[in-house]
Amino acid sequence: MATTATLHDAFLDELRDAYDAEHQVISALPKMVKAATSTALKAAFESHLEETRGHVARLEQAFASLGEKPRGKHCDGVCGILDEGRAILDEDFDAATLDACLIAGAQRVEHYEMAAYGTLVAWARAMGHEEAATLLEATLEEEEAADEKLTGIAEQGVNAAAARKAHPAKAAPRR
Amino acid sequence: MATTATLHDAFLDELRDAYDAEHQVISALPKMVKAATSTALKAAFESHLEETRGHVARLEQAFASLGEKPRGKHCDGVCGILDEGRAILDEDFDAATLDACLIAGAQRVEHYEMAAYGTLVAWARAMGHEEAATLLEATLEEEEAADEKLTGIAEQGVNAAAARKAHPAKAAPRR
Repeated sequence: MATTATLHDAFLDELRDAYDAEHQVISALPKMVKAATSTALKAAFESHLEETRGHVARLEQAFASLGEKPRGKHCDGVCGILDEGRAILDEDFDAATLDACLIAGAQRVEHYEMAAYGTLVAWARAMGHEEAATLLEATLEEEEAADEKLTGIAEQGVNAAAARKAHPAKAAPRR
Repeated sequence: MATTATLHDAFLDELRDAYDAEHQVISALPKMVKAATSTALKAAFESHLEETRGHVARLEQAFASLGEKPRGKHCDGVCGILDEGRAILDEDFDAATLDACLIAGAQRVEHYEMAAYGTLVAWARAMGHEEAATLLEATLEEEEAADEKLTGIAEQGVNAAAARKAHPAKAAPRR
């Protein structure tokens, strides 16, 4: 038996990292829903919470497709990003700035997950794990769409409202 | 004087987070250059180290454009991602899998930075800080290009070589 670990071992490690990361996101999102002041942002976080439950289910299917039981492995990356997010909630920001900061934190999580699922899809395809690749790609697409939705909410008012509070004379005028 | 923090305060916090993150990346990259076995990957990490020094210089210019002295604020997100990267170096992977894992770790850092600089550019523009926005956008573009270069290296041989070691019979044939 080989003592050297292979891409298959690394792939299982990455699946476990993603499984833990998604569970961390499920724990964090309700606090973000509660903290958000924009109705659109609250709704986006709520709908992403539902999607995230689906990502967990897809990861369980991906584990099953490889004959493996689902389990998590502590994801330091998402943990660090969520720690930064919790620090935002301790600050005394005006409402629009708080929303802008929540979006910034959430987009870091989305980007982490886009990198993680991008890797998982590429490795699954390289090893011929087509069922896992299809499942993981569906989640990757949802993470990308969630990130774009947050950019839209930021650009459609949150950033401009926060900027007016910060620099009333200098910021771009209200549209 | 307002006691509530504004988008300007949040922007300075984000600049300090990015300044610390870039310094963490400068500390980590030489170990990644040393660990990489693919010549193309070693070269990509070396050239990104040079670019990263330029990102620090641009952040210093951005601070100066706002009349602020550059300083860092511990970036938990990149710290967590780099902790994951250090764990990779402790594993006994075959050479191609080690390269694939180094790429996966580096792409998480790139994605974190893409999210961070994306936020910084949007906030700088919203507040009318055009000089800072131009500087930060130049770095954002380099982070995106670095990420694409890593995808290219993974797809042009590293992933396929690692997959052949993992599943000799199942993986896609050598091109």
